[in-house]
Amino acid sequence: MPVNPDLQKERDGASFPVEELTYVKDGGKDKTSRRRYIQSLALNDPDFQIGERAFLSRDEEYALGVKTGILVEKKAAQHNFRNEDERTRFRHTVTRNRHGNNVALHTLMFIPTIKGQGTKEQQKKWLPLAESMQVIGTYAQTELGHGTFIRGLETTATYLPQTQEFVLNSPTLTSMKWWPGNLGKTVNHAVVMAQLYIRGKKHGIHSFIIQLRDMETHLPMKGITIGDIGPKFGFNSNDNGFLKLDHVYIPRENMLMKYAKVSPDGTYTKPPTDKLAYGSMMYVRVSYLSSTAEALAMACTIAIRYSAVRRQSEMEPGGKEPQILDYQSQQLKLFPQLAMAYALYFTSMRTRKIYDNLLVELANGNYSNLQDMHALSCGMKAVSTTTMSKGIEICRLACGGHGYSHASGLPDLFTMVTHFQTAEGENTVMLLQTARYLMKCAGNAVSGERLSGQVEYLSESPQGKAAVGSGADLLNLGVLCDAYKYRAQRLVMEAARKFQGEMSAGKPQHIAWNNSHLYLLSAALAHCEYYTTKAFIETVMETDMPSSVRSVLKSLCQLYALYGIQENAGDFLKDGYFSGEHVTMVTTHVVSLLATLRQNAVALVDAFDFPDKTLWSVLGRYDGNVYENMYEWAKKSPLNKEEVHHSYYKYLKPMMQANTSKL
Amino acid sequence: MPVNPDLQKERDGASFPVEELTYVKDGGKDKTSRRRYIQSLALNDPDFQIGERAFLSRDEEYALGVKTGILVEKKAAQHNFRNEDERTRFRHTVTRNRHGNNVALHTLMFIPTIKGQGTKEQQKKWLPLAESMQVIGTYAQTELGHGTFIRGLETTATYLPQTQEFVLNSPTLTSMKWWPGNLGKTVNHAVVMAQLYIRGKKHGIHSFIIQLRDMETHLPMKGITIGDIGPKFGFNSNDNGFLKLDHVYIPRENMLMKYAKVSPDGTYTKPPTDKLAYGSMMYVRVSYLSSTAEALAMACTIAIRYSAVRRQSEMEPGGKEPQILDYQSQQLKLFPQLAMAYALYFTSMRTRKIYDNLLVELANGNYSNLQDMHALSCGMKAVSTTTMSKGIEICRLACGGHGYSHASGLPDLFTMVTHFQTAEGENTVMLLQTARYLMKCAGNAVSGERLSGQVEYLSESPQGKAAVGSGADLLNLGVLCDAYKYRAQRLVMEAARKFQGEMSAGKPQHIAWNNSHLYLLSAALAHCEYYTTKAFIETVMETDMPSSVRSVLKSLCQLYALYGIQENAGDFLKDGYFSGEHVTMVTTHVVSLLATLRQNAVALVDAFDFPDKTLWSVLGRYDGNVYENMYEWAKKSPLNKEEVHHSYYKYLKPMMQANTSKL
Repeated sequence: MPVNPDLQKERDGASFPVEELTYVKDGGKDKTSRRRYIQSLALNDPDFQIGERAFLSRDEEYALGVKTGILVEKKAAQHNFRNEDERTRFRHTVTRNRHGNNVALHTLMFIPTIKGQGTKEQQKKWLPLAESMQVIGTYAQTELGHGTFIRGLETTATYLPQTQEFVLNSPTLTSMKWWPGNLGKTVNHAVVMAQLYIRGKKHGIHSFIIQLRDMETHLPMKGITIGDIGPKFGFNSNDNGFLKLDHVYIPRENMLMKYAKVSPDGTYTKPPTDKLAYGSMMYVRVSYLSSTAEALAMACTIAIRYSAVRRQSEMEPGGKEPQILDYQSQQLKLFPQLAMAYALYFTSMRTRKIYDNLLVELANGNYSNLQDMHALSCGMKAVSTTTMSKGIEICRLACGGHGYSHASGLPDLFTMVTHFQTAEGENTVMLLQTARYLMKCAGNAVSGERLSGQVEYLSESPQGKAAVGSGADLLNLGVLCDAYKYRAQRLVMEAARKFQGEMSAGKPQHIAWNNSHLYLLSAALAHCEYYTTKAFIETVMETDMPSSVRSVLKSLCQLYALYGIQENAGDFLKDGYFSGEHVTMVTTHVVSLLATLRQNAVALVDAFDFPDKTLWSVLGRYDGNVYENMYEWAKKSPLNKEEVHHSYYKYLKPMMQANTSKL
Repeated sequence: MPVNPDLQKERDGASFPVEELTYVKDGGKDKTSRRRYIQSLALNDPDFQIGERAFLSRDEEYALGVKTGILVEKKAAQHNFRNEDERTRFRHTVTRNRHGNNVALHTLMFIPTIKGQGTKEQQKKWLPLAESMQVIGTYAQTELGHGTFIRGLETTATYLPQTQEFVLNSPTLTSMKWWPGNLGKTVNHAVVMAQLYIRGKKHGIHSFIIQLRDMETHLPMKGITIGDIGPKFGFNSNDNGFLKLDHVYIPRENMLMKYAKVSPDGTYTKPPTDKLAYGSMMYVRVSYLSSTAEALAMACTIAIRYSAVRRQSEMEPGGKEPQILDYQSQQLKLFPQLAMAYALYFTSMRTRKIYDNLLVELANGNYSNLQDMHALSCGMKAVSTTTMSKGIEICRLACGGHGYSHASGLPDLFTMVTHFQTAEGENTVMLLQTARYLMKCAGNAVSGERLSGQVEYLSESPQGKAAVGSGADLLNLGVLCDAYKYRAQRLVMEAARKFQGEMSAGKPQHIAWNNSHLYLLSAALAHCEYYTTKAFIETVMETDMPSSVRSVLKSLCQLYALYGIQENAGDFLKDGYFSGEHVTMVTTHVVSLLATLRQNAVALVDAFDFPDKTLWSVLGRYDGNVYENMYEWAKKSPLNKEEVHHSYYKYLKPMMQANTSKL
């Protein structure tokens, strides 16, 4: 079928070459072609073609996830990718295509943990078994009663010098491992995090390899109770599991001993530094950023294309029903999300660069930027995942009733990513970690220390008033960047004063801290939003791109910054940084930027370059043939397999007959 | 099992008698007992005891929904309830207990439409058939391409005088009926809304009764294509359906003709007034308010009880893990939602009273308050459903990782009610309807007309500055009410000026209107929030209740109002109504109200009085025995029926064996 004419008209009217923006978004033309090549390997592979996941039962989904997981790894190995990022891209493309991957934790956590924490001997023993998938493992950390706070874990690993074994045990109900992916039915091994005890002395959390299921029968080993934790909001192909350990004995060699060690006689050697623990968590949080950008961009693509196709209501009495994208209210929902999606892409690229630099520094024994990066990765993990989740929901609602159907792809997209907010460090806990670092830095800045890294701006003295002469100044990206800097400075200092005030009033530190949560959360948020704004602005100003692309990205960046000011106007008005007139002008600019961006909205989402097979949305199809395909989709719904549902004969017909005779 | 000691401690420490607050929430002691009696009939009925819905397949859910629907109606008739509200309460209790009701649209829409729009003869013919459920019907209005904008519907009903028939037709793909509940597989009849044509002349939307399926075989009638629209975010027991009409002939008598009429020779008689159309939509929107209150209250009950049971992290170094309810950040998430839930209950009660009064006026031919009520019901439908939906999501996230499990009950609660935002009038369209009325009233007020009803305040001249001397004044409910009034006045007038400005600049009215959407939406929102604040404050001040209850409700009301000011500080700062110092004090009050309310948080949700069987949440259990029951729940997960999943033999084992031989 030809492309829907309304959508074609949008594409014909774009003011910039879409392909060029795609290069900017990907970080260069070569990256775009490589991404497309990898995606095509995943999407065109006949082994990865399935129907609609929403039509599968959980049992079918699970089985498909096992099958797919095995195949993905096999093919990833065959394709000779250049690096882990490429393999990840390949895996994600397959699973975004709505398969599960029920050996994902094996590849993403089990093997890397053995590589990262195992000795040479341990690696030699386990890696061949794991890489050939005889041993299939997962990483079991969280417990029924314990999540983000790792020190609180209750599972015990007690060393028995006489037999040179550890005995692993779940001493309480709340100590049961709960949530680890693929644990319930799939894996036969796990790295289990447990409190190490030697001769009655507690040595904290360490990692142990435990066999969970028999290699032949797949039945649980002695002392192991294991199962699936039950259905969830989303991700139901994944058998997130529970694990109860009842005095399970493992040899001493199964404790991962690259850093901490237990000798045969029970002598404990501490790891050389506790800073190493940051590493893998930071990596996951940094990599979340690109996932959030992609998920929000998908939602925008679906909602904006559909809004160009959908015609509804009347604007002019008796006139043709307009494209709903023409309504200012619809633009007001969608364009700030579109701007945010670009902001997240650019922030993700920049953060990855900072992280890669840090890795080089760490390898050279330079830990000076570790905390700065840790604080940034915690805060940005929280801010990006929350923003994304809210944004997807806004996009879903902008599709009206049809957004509620799985045909839109939006419910599934939402449930697939919304758990990012609570996984890998609950978001509020993450923001408070950022705040803790900011408070330390604020203290140092007040004592006159010159700060560097992402907190450098806290050493500068804040501007009291915005440098705004005319209304046009509010479109200046430097002025906008300054405004976010000012807000972060003010809110960080306000939180520091609040916390210090509580301390001065004689409160114990932990009470003072708790009493300041509201202020601390605002400070961390403002810090992250300044970082994001700066990343967006600097990308727009400094990246090489055609002027037509820069022009549209500049409008988008202005909208991003101005919309944020409008939504948080109180932060800027409170101390008079902006005047009431400034805020009036901000709103005027927001309204005119919506109108400016209208022409390029479809082109801006086309530039995200999602193949239809990754969007999995009838509403978001590239060709815009929405209604024909909604009908085709619905006809395939399992409930339509029988023209008359079997329950008719069981319930409806007998009831109708009984009531007829009563009439 | 005994009640969890942490939860018991909370209950022991409450400062007020919970039962008394329940009476206030229900509108009186007698109403509480009647509600409990009706709930107990539903919840203790052995026919309505089922296992966990999350464990059912869609096919099982659908069949159960048919069975339940039939039983609910049968039992509702047997129980001799006093009125329709009681029957609704009974039905809701059964379906909130996680059944579907697949004849719900028959009772809620099909029969009432025949009663409301059918002639005496039509009622005599159809009601006995419908009430004995020979004829099972639904109401088919929305189409694949047409939702809230009813005039845009495309289905045609063309009168043929020679045979005295209508021919019903779906002339385009987008004209297919789409979404009507129970349409796909269950019903055998429907009231279908279609554009009436007589001799080539269009007469607008009218209602027609069409038989869809054979009464014996349940197969679709000639010319009818019908089916389920496929899986959705939630409500999957419901067979929302599609319907394509290919020249379906029905007798002239099947057009509902109480108001509009078509005589045998094709003479058309218009309905006496077009105001009647408001009636049933208004009723549904008003009744949404109590549903939103209840749904948000359920989410608060779950999250707050769980937060009292859950202990996590450390506050004091080395100290016992605190109840997460002790964290200010947790209180900051949950207590504003709790306050909002009470606000919605009180607003719902007040709105229902206004609506009931209106019905009396309408019966007496007095239409003067109809528009005011219409505007109020549209706006409050939008504001309450959006607030509820966001609030449930905040509660879910406040439960951390476990909130993502269906064991929490929160994902299911969310998907069951979030569609309220797009159903029965899409929320943005609703707010713009309210805004249209406000703009008319603002114009009249400027011309010196004395307004009455909910817009009376637009006739008052706004206070320029808040009457705040000391910080304590900001806790005064009168001062807070004035602040919301001021904000509504200002934003309504600002929108009016914007719209007039666009008109004065020569824009056609529809363009001027569209260009003002941002301002209009703010105005409608502020109007509704003022209404809600006033309802909350007046209920707290004027209802008869023990002083200990009034005291806690007063704190909650202060939090509601102050939190709203803090979140929208820009609106109050912009023109200097509040100063920066005022806003600083607002935040200080918010923080201390969180601490004040901490003691009574569990009692405040206990007062909502939800039996466990309606919450359907392991986290929100009254006895707080969360972890034991999560384990019991998980063990019943269908994936745990086989210790070794059958896919092991198909995929994992062959792969492991093949790879072993390769090693």
